[in-house]
Amino acid sequence: MEISQHDGNAATAQPYRAPSSDTGYVVGVDIGGTNLRLALANLSGAIVAKWSSSTAGVRGADAVVGLICDGIKNVLQQTSVPRDSLKGIAVGVPGVTDVEEGRVIATSYLLGWRDVPLAAMLEAALNIPSAVDNDVNLAAVGESWAGAAKGAPDFAFVAIGTGIGAGIVLNHSLFHGAGWAAGEIGYMLVPGTPNAPRKRDEPGALESMIGGEGIRAEWQKLWSADKTTLPREMIASEIFDAALAGDPLAQTILQQSARMLSHAIYNMSLVLNCPLFVLGGGVGLHPALCAATRGMLQQWAVRGRPDLIASELGPDAQLMGALRLAIDTAELNSPVSAAK
Amino acid sequence: MEISQHDGNAATAQPYRAPSSDTGYVVGVDIGGTNLRLALANLSGAIVAKWSSSTAGVRGADAVVGLICDGIKNVLQQTSVPRDSLKGIAVGVPGVTDVEEGRVIATSYLLGWRDVPLAAMLEAALNIPSAVDNDVNLAAVGESWAGAAKGAPDFAFVAIGTGIGAGIVLNHSLFHGAGWAAGEIGYMLVPGTPNAPRKRDEPGALESMIGGEGIRAEWQKLWSADKTTLPREMIASEIFDAALAGDPLAQTILQQSARMLSHAIYNMSLVLNCPLFVLGGGVGLHPALCAATRGMLQQWAVRGRPDLIASELGPDAQLMGALRLAIDTAELNSPVSAAK
Repeated sequence: MEISQHDGNAATAQPYRAPSSDTGYVVGVDIGGTNLRLALANLSGAIVAKWSSSTAGVRGADAVVGLICDGIKNVLQQTSVPRDSLKGIAVGVPGVTDVEEGRVIATSYLLGWRDVPLAAMLEAALNIPSAVDNDVNLAAVGESWAGAAKGAPDFAFVAIGTGIGAGIVLNHSLFHGAGWAAGEIGYMLVPGTPNAPRKRDEPGALESMIGGEGIRAEWQKLWSADKTTLPREMIASEIFDAALAGDPLAQTILQQSARMLSHAIYNMSLVLNCPLFVLGGGVGLHPALCAATRGMLQQWAVRGRPDLIASELGPDAQLMGALRLAIDTAELNSPVSAAK
Repeated sequence: MEISQHDGNAATAQPYRAPSSDTGYVVGVDIGGTNLRLALANLSGAIVAKWSSSTAGVRGADAVVGLICDGIKNVLQQTSVPRDSLKGIAVGVPGVTDVEEGRVIATSYLLGWRDVPLAAMLEAALNIPSAVDNDVNLAAVGESWAGAAKGAPDFAFVAIGTGIGAGIVLNHSLFHGAGWAAGEIGYMLVPGTPNAPRKRDEPGALESMIGGEGIRAEWQKLWSADKTTLPREMIASEIFDAALAGDPLAQTILQQSARMLSHAIYNMSLVLNCPLFVLGGGVGLHPALCAATRGMLQQWAVRGRPDLIASELGPDAQLMGALRLAIDTAELNSPVSAAK
């Protein structure tokens, strides 16, 4: 994927500057629930190699850093890029992350991390400038740099997978919040959700209804043999496919999901005065959900109603954002930058 | 009211600096739905005179500017402060306001303004530096400078009157939003509100339930002679008084209002990662509503649940914020500042 180096509308605080030398390379990493994905790119953002590995059984931060080192070895071998050409690395983490300190404050139960100094661990292992951020925040950076939100000063990326979260860009910069937890909308309360917030270690109210598992549970709750010819065991993307194919129960679930999502997006837009939302994530990438939700938002006769568009980068959004952050991190630490 | 001039924790971008000379005075104005209130203060923020007037029948911006001029004459006469000691004025407006341009973009139906260059009109009429902002934003500035949120870098002021709105302070600065309309939470959708947003010229979904008129309408909807000995015609503050006195129907209304308010505050806190909320406004100042809502928020076993506290400045919050903005505006335009 070729990324223009002249795009001045990126999500990080500084407009993207052309690197002083393009002999360097950076690594971007996305730590997902089931896979760790890694890309090697030059300082213009052009990806030259990719690698991924299952994270099944890999839980501790040391083990994840080890996996990242394996991946880097692999992409360097694939490309014959010399080790000392690596100028920076950035990692997207599924959790609340203090980007100034490079610390992961907390992840979901999948990794179970608490207060992990991941940037320092990477610097110790790799001896290159290292940065970390929340994965959904990095997806917003990716869409801003090279995807659906190019040029948009204010927007939010909404990721729907098993959980739901948002990465918020205000005036071309990521908005992290006072405790690095802005955009935790999986816990939002809208008409149709349980009307009191769940405990933190349970799914949030909104994601319990329209996250991947929530959609599956709603399907099973409403399922009966006289309502649909489809089986009782279906995952969210299959249910949305069935809705497009005309199954009435699947259409009910799709409409319910789109309604709650449109309400959550509308609530965010009211608080932030944010005009644009980009929908992504494993469940959010299904075109039926984006189309149905967008249609609901457009029907409302309210001034300032937000627009919703589909992610352009798809599953690569986080990885592209990680590469952009890695380039920024390399630039910040380059001899030219340091001399400024 | 005496305001310390050494408080460095104000909501505007610059910490408050002691004025270079305290021979000057500023005017703060709050344009409300029924009254216009005005205060004269020295550059330390100490109020030396107040004035107010009904706005019944006063609708046009020219008429409001005329009323402000009348009020200024009155407070100068009260205090024998010479006209040329006036160094600045700031006005709080019940509507969406472009503070950079000094333009009121839109107000509610009460004033019906669209795109009014109020700061320029004031400068033409008074020949002193003039600033405008939304009234709820100025209430947040007031509470940050001299009220319940002193020292808090991140908080939101939630005003409940006939309508509902929020003034948001992030990292010691007002957050206005891309279109100057951040915090328009009167339109928020939570469990119990109508589940689609109303049109813009109607009350929002949340304020239609728990704004002053909404609470009154809910009381009338649920009222029957066997549920309460109280009359069918009651206003919000009387209903909350009756709840404190033990009336069961009034308690039902209070609990319903507190539940929806707690959900709206929780939703805002999720989006903004904001830990503190200050409750004010004509209806919001009732202690029963703050206590009930605070109690609900405290019961939730969620990490990062927000705290809610009562306004300390009460109905003076907007006026204090207007004075603070007027002092900042005067400072910015003083010969010393201009020479910097």
